[in-house]
Amino acid sequence: MNIRLVLFTLGKVTFLEGFLMLLPFLVSLYYGENATPFFIAILAAFAVGTILMVMFKTGTDKLYAREGFAITTFCWIVLSIIGALPFVVSGTVTSFADAVFETMSGFTTTGASILTNVESVGKGLLFWRSFTHWIGGMGVLVFLVAIAEKNPNRSINILKAEMPGSKVDKLRPRARTTARVLYYIYFVMTILQILLLVIGDMPLFDSVVHSFGTAGTGGFGIKADSIASYSAYSQYVIAIFMLLFGVNFSFYFMMLLRRWKSAIGLTEIRWYLSIVGIAVLITTIVIMPKYGNLEESFRLSLFQVSSIITTTGYATTDFNLWHPLAKTVLFLLMFIGGCEGSTAGGLKVSRVMVLLKNVKVELKRAIHPRLITGVRVNNKAMPPEIVHGIEAYLALYLVILCSAFILISFEPMGFETNFTAVVTCINNVGPGFADVGPAGNFAAYSGATKVMLTALMMIGRLEIYPVLLTLLPKMK
Amino acid sequence: MNIRLVLFTLGKVTFLEGFLMLLPFLVSLYYGENATPFFIAILAAFAVGTILMVMFKTGTDKLYAREGFAITTFCWIVLSIIGALPFVVSGTVTSFADAVFETMSGFTTTGASILTNVESVGKGLLFWRSFTHWIGGMGVLVFLVAIAEKNPNRSINILKAEMPGSKVDKLRPRARTTARVLYYIYFVMTILQILLLVIGDMPLFDSVVHSFGTAGTGGFGIKADSIASYSAYSQYVIAIFMLLFGVNFSFYFMMLLRRWKSAIGLTEIRWYLSIVGIAVLITTIVIMPKYGNLEESFRLSLFQVSSIITTTGYATTDFNLWHPLAKTVLFLLMFIGGCEGSTAGGLKVSRVMVLLKNVKVELKRAIHPRLITGVRVNNKAMPPEIVHGIEAYLALYLVILCSAFILISFEPMGFETNFTAVVTCINNVGPGFADVGPAGNFAAYSGATKVMLTALMMIGRLEIYPVLLTLLPKMK
Repeated sequence: MNIRLVLFTLGKVTFLEGFLMLLPFLVSLYYGENATPFFIAILAAFAVGTILMVMFKTGTDKLYAREGFAITTFCWIVLSIIGALPFVVSGTVTSFADAVFETMSGFTTTGASILTNVESVGKGLLFWRSFTHWIGGMGVLVFLVAIAEKNPNRSINILKAEMPGSKVDKLRPRARTTARVLYYIYFVMTILQILLLVIGDMPLFDSVVHSFGTAGTGGFGIKADSIASYSAYSQYVIAIFMLLFGVNFSFYFMMLLRRWKSAIGLTEIRWYLSIVGIAVLITTIVIMPKYGNLEESFRLSLFQVSSIITTTGYATTDFNLWHPLAKTVLFLLMFIGGCEGSTAGGLKVSRVMVLLKNVKVELKRAIHPRLITGVRVNNKAMPPEIVHGIEAYLALYLVILCSAFILISFEPMGFETNFTAVVTCINNVGPGFADVGPAGNFAAYSGATKVMLTALMMIGRLEIYPVLLTLLPKMK
Repeated sequence: MNIRLVLFTLGKVTFLEGFLMLLPFLVSLYYGENATPFFIAILAAFAVGTILMVMFKTGTDKLYAREGFAITTFCWIVLSIIGALPFVVSGTVTSFADAVFETMSGFTTTGASILTNVESVGKGLLFWRSFTHWIGGMGVLVFLVAIAEKNPNRSINILKAEMPGSKVDKLRPRARTTARVLYYIYFVMTILQILLLVIGDMPLFDSVVHSFGTAGTGGFGIKADSIASYSAYSQYVIAIFMLLFGVNFSFYFMMLLRRWKSAIGLTEIRWYLSIVGIAVLITTIVIMPKYGNLEESFRLSLFQVSSIITTTGYATTDFNLWHPLAKTVLFLLMFIGGCEGSTAGGLKVSRVMVLLKNVKVELKRAIHPRLITGVRVNNKAMPPEIVHGIEAYLALYLVILCSAFILISFEPMGFETNFTAVVTCINNVGPGFADVGPAGNFAAYSGATKVMLTALMMIGRLEIYPVLLTLLPKMK
């Protein structure tokens, strides 16, 4: 492995983080808060970044898959450590493990929090917290590629590691253009949401941070009751934008290219919308008796379903108190997640779809063993290797989930709390049920468990392979 | 599909069940109980069996996979319905759905019960309940093949449907011999356990029913506290025999043939024993503070671990009150289950082993895409089709599990109760956690849910395919 190249790129990213922290620094100043914590963090980022870049300056070395994995993994760790400084220096969070948990939760767009009283936190920090969602949603390395990496041979393996999926490969000759187009769509949609919220009755600051949280499908709120105290209009806007950011960005790409037919023909999008539709229908009916009002039940259902399937994690009610059937629907949505190539987490609709289609094929094969047919997606036969790759991913995912469940069980919390805590972290959702439900938080867990959950969020966000292949003992 | 052949075989099996019920009938008479309920059930079985055999008498038609699936599925349903008669006729169970649940739980060797006061039930019924475990453990159709089916071309597809796994295929020419050898080993081991229990301090009746429950890995007890009130000696005997019945019967087969090396070389057995060893070690340490005594902690751990991994379900303590870590270990063991080709349920150690080995292969492949290596079991490369088949099975299993979890969530019970109820039923374990823990039962569920869980137990016992392919709308 080319360690120099890894450290050099790490330096670049750290430097970039320093720049990005200028924004919350300015917010702090604007609101007359003590901006020193950000100043210190920015200095640290610039110092570390400069040292790494100078010490490990490299030429035009090629960047292979292995380096891509390592860069991505270490970048996310370093970003979260440096990004945690403002929380600790300001004294808002006293434990460093807690601050790294919070920052990793931000970058991975999980939205699980250890803050017990979010309303007492300064505006600068609240802004930074939500801004990490926005940066992490599309990917910080994708951002780097978009603004600073001219060599496509290098960019491609970074993009592949940070934006896993089968589609990046085709983009090789224009990795940078792709990264730029993605960020362009992302930026425009975020601005649009801010405008729509401000036009309503939401203050500008609130609109900005909530739009960051929506765009990255993150979910950090700034009120104890998340989005519950905002108007019905704002709730609808956020619900719909959560759904939009959970859509495969190829869809918007095709729309921009005016390839309407291909866009609408995407199998994954149809599955995604069908799942949302069915889930909203079920939960609306189930919670109707509790609220007694169709519009309110529908709005609560739409919001919670959108929030959970896109793994955002905002809430407009304490869904932990819902009827078991509604909770089970939300629980299963946590695993499904949004579309491939969106900012959402989870297994992704495309994987779930392929697994289900393959189950049907296998059932047929049990009766007709010589059947030569396979899974079809977007009107094309899917190569068996990809189907097997997804099946192997599922098995690996379950291994990680079970391991994390064992580790979290050292804690005295109940089955529901512990189990949904790991489910919500690996899928980058945010809230779980019981003690870690929308009305709770992760503060009660020990430092060791928080470190484990921090790693789990990262493993989930980067889709396992990069992290495991970098951190595990050498595999020949 | 050859419906005549299916119905004819169904008749044979029903007739056989009538014979098998003579045993509890005699037990009832011996203990001076009212044996009329068994008399009526036996008459019904003989009547239905005779009518079916006479009406649909067939020649020497070949029996294909599809018929094998249908025979197995319908036999298990009919067996449970007729086997439920003594419960209802005697008035011990008032709801027919409850009685079928109890009987299916018996035949599938699940051991989940709807009885709220098992100690008030008559000896005849207690014997019948445990006897269904013994019959269902090795398979009722396997028994039929062993005693009455001379045509190997017919036997093979019945064996394949009732004893799924990759190994039956090789046995084609000697299907009947295999069935006989399996039952011989099964019978001898059961007798041995009864003797060992009687030599200790357990009464004969208790020894017999508990040995039936152990052999079939079923778990119906005859006391409110399951095995807790018996001596430490009896608990050790049962714990060890549970483990022995969770071993792949190929192992005993090889031992009989004196192929010691091959027997010990079986990869699955080594995995099985390693998992048991690690689980016992962890739980012993975790529960030590609670009991303060090493021998007691070890004995409780060994018993509960053996009971859960073999999906038997006996208990010597209310493990629902254990520390979360010990509960999580037991929870995961429920999924693993015993060895392939044993009487245990669950995913089976062999499947879990192949999935984990394949995860390792896939991780290597992510770095070396052109890697040509695969999963190795018993020192041989495993064909990729089998690996993919197991992956597809996992996906199908999860689909069923999630669907059942949605359906059970109509009930007002909590997350832990509902979730572990479906987990314990699909894996044929018996007890779950919370309200359906070792100290609880399934009585509180509605009739509809009990029917669903009854189906789930059958789906789990027959490893999904036979039931789904028979009951689902035609798949071309």
